[in-house]
Amino acid sequence: MKKFSFQEIGGSVTAPQGFRAAGVFCDIKRLGTGKGSSKGAKRDLALIVSDAPATVAGTFTTNRICAAPVKFCVERVAGGSARAIVVNSGNANACTGRQGLRDAAAMARAAAEACGGGISAREVLVASTGRIGVPLPMAQVRKGIVDAARLLAGGPEAARHACEAIMTSDTRPKEIGLEFVLGGKKVRLGGIAKGAGMIQPGMSQTGGRPALRALHATMLCFLSTDAAVEGKFLQTALNEAVAKSFNRITVDGDMSTNDTVLILANGRAGNAPLAGRAKESRDFLAVLDHVTLGLAKKIVMDGEGASRFVTVRVAGAKSAGDADAAARAVANSALVKTSWCGGDPNWGRILCALGYSTAELVENRVDVGYSLPEQREVLYSLKRGCPTGASFSALCKFSTAPAFDLHINLHLGSGSAVIYTADLTEAYVDFNKGDVNDPSSLGG
Amino acid sequence: MKKFSFQEIGGSVTAPQGFRAAGVFCDIKRLGTGKGSSKGAKRDLALIVSDAPATVAGTFTTNRICAAPVKFCVERVAGGSARAIVVNSGNANACTGRQGLRDAAAMARAAAEACGGGISAREVLVASTGRIGVPLPMAQVRKGIVDAARLLAGGPEAARHACEAIMTSDTRPKEIGLEFVLGGKKVRLGGIAKGAGMIQPGMSQTGGRPALRALHATMLCFLSTDAAVEGKFLQTALNEAVAKSFNRITVDGDMSTNDTVLILANGRAGNAPLAGRAKESRDFLAVLDHVTLGLAKKIVMDGEGASRFVTVRVAGAKSAGDADAAARAVANSALVKTSWCGGDPNWGRILCALGYSTAELVENRVDVGYSLPEQREVLYSLKRGCPTGASFSALCKFSTAPAFDLHINLHLGSGSAVIYTADLTEAYVDFNKGDVNDPSSLGG
Repeated sequence: MKKFSFQEIGGSVTAPQGFRAAGVFCDIKRLGTGKGSSKGAKRDLALIVSDAPATVAGTFTTNRICAAPVKFCVERVAGGSARAIVVNSGNANACTGRQGLRDAAAMARAAAEACGGGISAREVLVASTGRIGVPLPMAQVRKGIVDAARLLAGGPEAARHACEAIMTSDTRPKEIGLEFVLGGKKVRLGGIAKGAGMIQPGMSQTGGRPALRALHATMLCFLSTDAAVEGKFLQTALNEAVAKSFNRITVDGDMSTNDTVLILANGRAGNAPLAGRAKESRDFLAVLDHVTLGLAKKIVMDGEGASRFVTVRVAGAKSAGDADAAARAVANSALVKTSWCGGDPNWGRILCALGYSTAELVENRVDVGYSLPEQREVLYSLKRGCPTGASFSALCKFSTAPAFDLHINLHLGSGSAVIYTADLTEAYVDFNKGDVNDPSSLGG
Repeated sequence: MKKFSFQEIGGSVTAPQGFRAAGVFCDIKRLGTGKGSSKGAKRDLALIVSDAPATVAGTFTTNRICAAPVKFCVERVAGGSARAIVVNSGNANACTGRQGLRDAAAMARAAAEACGGGISAREVLVASTGRIGVPLPMAQVRKGIVDAARLLAGGPEAARHACEAIMTSDTRPKEIGLEFVLGGKKVRLGGIAKGAGMIQPGMSQTGGRPALRALHATMLCFLSTDAAVEGKFLQTALNEAVAKSFNRITVDGDMSTNDTVLILANGRAGNAPLAGRAKESRDFLAVLDHVTLGLAKKIVMDGEGASRFVTVRVAGAKSAGDADAAARAVANSALVKTSWCGGDPNWGRILCALGYSTAELVENRVDVGYSLPEQREVLYSLKRGCPTGASFSALCKFSTAPAFDLHINLHLGSGSAVIYTADLTEAYVDFNKGDVNDPSSLGG
């Protein structure tokens, strides 16, 4: 049986047929350093438009303090159809009260008007990222929307501009575009994402009560496909993909007020609409997993100040929840993360974090080992609670690598979990402490 | 009615009658830089001895990975009487298996032999702090114990040597000595403590399952008094004092494997033994609270890399547990802590942390305000979920101070909690990342 295959192509969010995008600078942080053109400072407003009505699905932060655009989208996505997404960086529109909700709705209306082509305000979704508690500068936002609508285009460059516009502390754009075949039709799926800090998403379809401790710079991800996908299946597929990708990452343990993933499927590829358990649906899920996991890992690798990418693998926990708690305790421990920054394996700090996690644990059953990514050789520092005698320098071979995997087995059951994380560096602190004499330096 | 009063005196752990102490360097990290005298590198072994049998009480980390000396003491303290405490820094004797337990017992025996005066090995308590997972260098430890026993003395200098010997990343000694009158008798209570990193103690009398997420460098505290105190009441008094002090601090959110507080009461003051609810017992509790809270705050102020001391006060929570969860989410948020490092009030990040905590919360009820310590004026940035319009520069007056209080009211009930914490700075990262080419630079 031939394995299902897909190939990476350029263009990301505009790679699928019938999608256009643009990104402009409209001075949302009001730096006064540019004049509303895309040539001034970093772009800060993006538009993504589908030429045809698209089914839509979304997942949103479960932080109970959630931003106005999140509240706005949670209701709208349930409707099931959309044509456009308008996104700003530089201001989270969070903790902005009723004015924030009015501003989010006004952004949607302004985008519908500016895009024309029969798009109604009800078909526009909204997302924001940036500082919390500051009202949106709506004059700048409106001007940016008009400018962006004039620049809407297909192709890799337009997608790149949109991708740059959603970036905050990201040092590089995060984008992906794939092509594959579904039921004899050529189909494409593309996406852009941003992250960097305030990153431990715990998203659900409806937002609401946190299922887990999570994180802060906001992560945003916008996906587009020209496949025809039924709305209910699209939401199920996104829920599953997010659970295995964005909800498995942590940069700093802070769950944002604004985390949002949206996917639009406009059906331009002409395939029979995907639903249920057909082979084509499984193939679509595989592509979606590949895209979301790829973007999620890119967010961690480009985490604020991050110098090392660590995959924490916990097995043998009493339950899946215990495995998750154990992996997150390790991945979010300030002392574990700073030891990784220096390349110190310091499995003692890892044991300490496991010990204060809420996971069931028996000291003389715990294994801790190290490997390089995608390599079989695991060097254990601890087996059944006893140091193996692996030398410090042998362990450093792994812990000083740019990326390594940590293998923890609690030997108490069959629960397992994976968390992707990064080290904690001086650069993270420097970035996030900002400079109160230069408020433009202050992050979210 | 005259208020109960006490006065600070010098001498800390040797201020009470019948206590002697010593601290020596015995090269436990095996730096090879000194020769077992107190003149080489920083002292790393301390002895505290009571000339008479003392009632004893203790609280210990609830991390399920707990060090051998913790396991050793939990059993021994239940016995109710002790004469001496032997403590080393530079090695935690944690994750050291059965050998670790044998080494802890051997430390107690060596101390009993070296001290003479009829002290039995059963009357010696043991504590350790330092790197996890490395066997204790027992030859050095034994030599240090013999050296220290020869130097046992009363007075402030001996207490200072013991205090220095228990320090790891601390930049200054933490000690206190008080004199007061109980039932017509002059009584003294003294103590020494160490902290700096791996600090979010969650201690109980019996160790065991964590009641809360907690922290990492180990905190140790040794208290002595010449009051006569019945063992059961001494334990109750210590439990209450620790709950209000050491269990209310967090530096980095990591709960250590070694957190230990011990108190010895040798009765030399000649008072009628304290028990139950007499006025003298309440007075003793007041002094103990003052001592433990004072030492706990000193630990936070000297937290690894800390530049700001912040008191997080949560009121109006649905329950005391919710208040605690909310305060700890704020106090342990990497983004909140780094904003404080830069003097940025950033109440948006505070809201974000409250939102992902496990506490019940309704966005449009939350107040957030700032004050200087022990001052009545509170400047609110948020009232009932709405920004008050307090200016950034007005808020900075508080957030750029060396110490400030944060006032959070959830307006959902009567639960309240206080957590004492510090900012997260580049110096914390720099200290804890160490240098793998210089293993002696690597912390716990």
